[in-house]
Amino acid sequence: MTNPKILLPGQSIGILGAGQLGKMLAQSAQKMGYHVHMLDEKEACGFAVSHKSVISDFSDKEAVVEFGRQCDVLTYEFENIDGDILSELEQRINLPQGADFLLTTQHRQYEKDWLSQLEVPTVAYEVVKSVDALVQALQTVQWQAVVKTVRFGYDGKGQVLIQSEADFHQQLDKLKSLLAQQLLIVEGFCEFAYEASVIVARDQWGTIEIFPPTINEHRQGILAASYTRDWSEQPEVFAQLRDYSYRIAEAAELVGVCGIEFFVLASGDVLVNELAPRPHNTGHLTIESCNVSQFDQHILAITGRHLVPVQPLSSAVSVNILGQHIEQLPELIEQTPAALIHLYDKGEAKVGRKMGHITQLCSSTEAATDWLDTTFISQWLEAFE
Amino acid sequence: MTNPKILLPGQSIGILGAGQLGKMLAQSAQKMGYHVHMLDEKEACGFAVSHKSVISDFSDKEAVVEFGRQCDVLTYEFENIDGDILSELEQRINLPQGADFLLTTQHRQYEKDWLSQLEVPTVAYEVVKSVDALVQALQTVQWQAVVKTVRFGYDGKGQVLIQSEADFHQQLDKLKSLLAQQLLIVEGFCEFAYEASVIVARDQWGTIEIFPPTINEHRQGILAASYTRDWSEQPEVFAQLRDYSYRIAEAAELVGVCGIEFFVLASGDVLVNELAPRPHNTGHLTIESCNVSQFDQHILAITGRHLVPVQPLSSAVSVNILGQHIEQLPELIEQTPAALIHLYDKGEAKVGRKMGHITQLCSSTEAATDWLDTTFISQWLEAFE
Repeated sequence: MTNPKILLPGQSIGILGAGQLGKMLAQSAQKMGYHVHMLDEKEACGFAVSHKSVISDFSDKEAVVEFGRQCDVLTYEFENIDGDILSELEQRINLPQGADFLLTTQHRQYEKDWLSQLEVPTVAYEVVKSVDALVQALQTVQWQAVVKTVRFGYDGKGQVLIQSEADFHQQLDKLKSLLAQQLLIVEGFCEFAYEASVIVARDQWGTIEIFPPTINEHRQGILAASYTRDWSEQPEVFAQLRDYSYRIAEAAELVGVCGIEFFVLASGDVLVNELAPRPHNTGHLTIESCNVSQFDQHILAITGRHLVPVQPLSSAVSVNILGQHIEQLPELIEQTPAALIHLYDKGEAKVGRKMGHITQLCSSTEAATDWLDTTFISQWLEAFE
Repeated sequence: MTNPKILLPGQSIGILGAGQLGKMLAQSAQKMGYHVHMLDEKEACGFAVSHKSVISDFSDKEAVVEFGRQCDVLTYEFENIDGDILSELEQRINLPQGADFLLTTQHRQYEKDWLSQLEVPTVAYEVVKSVDALVQALQTVQWQAVVKTVRFGYDGKGQVLIQSEADFHQQLDKLKSLLAQQLLIVEGFCEFAYEASVIVARDQWGTIEIFPPTINEHRQGILAASYTRDWSEQPEVFAQLRDYSYRIAEAAELVGVCGIEFFVLASGDVLVNELAPRPHNTGHLTIESCNVSQFDQHILAITGRHLVPVQPLSSAVSVNILGQHIEQLPELIEQTPAALIHLYDKGEAKVGRKMGHITQLCSSTEAATDWLDTTFISQWLEAFE
């Protein structure tokens, strides 16, 4: 291993994407004294906290490469960078995260094949390119499956839940239209006890750090809430979450952070649901609840510095703020006096759009779930439906 | 009391001054979704994290008022705003901090007179306007005093330490030149056991919150290090620090944060040294060591929101990074793997200029002082001399 290129404060970090993840990365970088350049396809919330902002299509190879050439290091807030541009960037720009792992995680089949090679369990899956093959795959899993496009899609976009043969017929038009665009992956429906996730970080020196695993609640395919828990009550689950996370970070030669979503089964067994090779919504509570946040660790890693050993300081719970919540903001402020309310300043408050999040520090797992279930926040969660 | 004007995210905060305090205020505001406008006399480090930046003399009344008119609320990172401009701002702009307390703290005599009225003890002081009066005042305190201009001065600027009659004669030229500009205040030299400070916050609803008091070490009149301590070992000292802080915040009708510097005597008695009606260097460690930082509380207070109850999460120590340290930055990064290194991006690294700070979370007061005394940081502190 050659020694990493260490960037000192005053040098510049380029970030592809200036949404909330880019903005929070930029804020960490600014705190450390780095200059920040951001590129997005239109005016975006990160621009207000960057030294330089560029508007360009992400698919404009020339513009993206030129942007990268003007920065001392390049990173990204999202995984959907075109493979051709990515390999150009990898060859010509300081892109310590490389292209390989990102290319793997861009494709659900490649990701699951790669996890299988690592002996990290996933749900049963099959890739299909025709309606006939889809029918056969669905029969194998007794018509209980989530059917997804193999590429590009998050928060439930490009996904169809099938729970019966009747469901399949009802959704056939949508499935056909997806099939016309892409291969589909049929993932056997998983009866999990709960969803968990880990933010794992690795620096260019090979050190791996994980943040405390969280338990996550989704509504309509969108993350609603995440909270830390006392894992000493479930040591076997914790051990699997930790061990798989380390295995993935090591095999990927990860640089920066990666969010790993898990299904935890009633048996205590753990499966990987999916990987996000970037800061992740379930890690936002690290800003207040740990000595160092997921965004800080990412910036340290890509600038060739050492990760800071993670020290959890408090239990915590975070809840997303969506477009449909914005009118209730004054009430939220009134009703959550001890919470830290983050707003991303993303402009138009569309339904389902992530506009911010709230983090509440708690004394225990019970305090966190009580806060979700018995306070104003329980009404808040209803607005996700 | 009329209800405060509550600003919602998306509205704008104007900050006079875009140095490191302004920058860190802006970062808190940005996190909460506010827009930030900054004004400074030249290109300044906060500009990179603001929506809009304006260059103007602070003494240009028209420009400053026009700047304020374009913001939904106005605040400042420093106390030296001209009184005439301040009263104009108070009348025409939403300036919830008001003018009175700032005007008091701009003048060492007014500040000490005001504290005396509150029965908050200070060092013995006398204001003089001639060399004769100065000699007489110095005789009264046995030639053991700090002589300061009554207005404008920090980090030891505009201050002369006198320890003997010979000292006085040696420094006479400097003292005469100060007297030609301003009244001088003679403060009896205080044999303190240590210096402490409190960041107190008060919102427009009248709620007061204090951050854990720190112990501070100065070198050459510049703050070198601050650390939290276990005050249960000195409950009487803690009670005085807390009670005086509340008394000051209440009497001042403080809005936002104020740094209060104290001398703690060997007897356990506590005196106020000085007030800084803004975020304070000794509160930087609140960013990592508490659930909410001094900057967050200030933004909450000026936007009419409620303070978040302060919850200390860890013991901590912070050390300043001055211009003369910048060459040692790579070594600092290498030698302090668990520290959070903040750099302000202030450009030229002049000797004595505050360029950043380091915060180390610690398990105890002893761990904090050990970190200062026995690690690489002990060499770092030598560079303050």
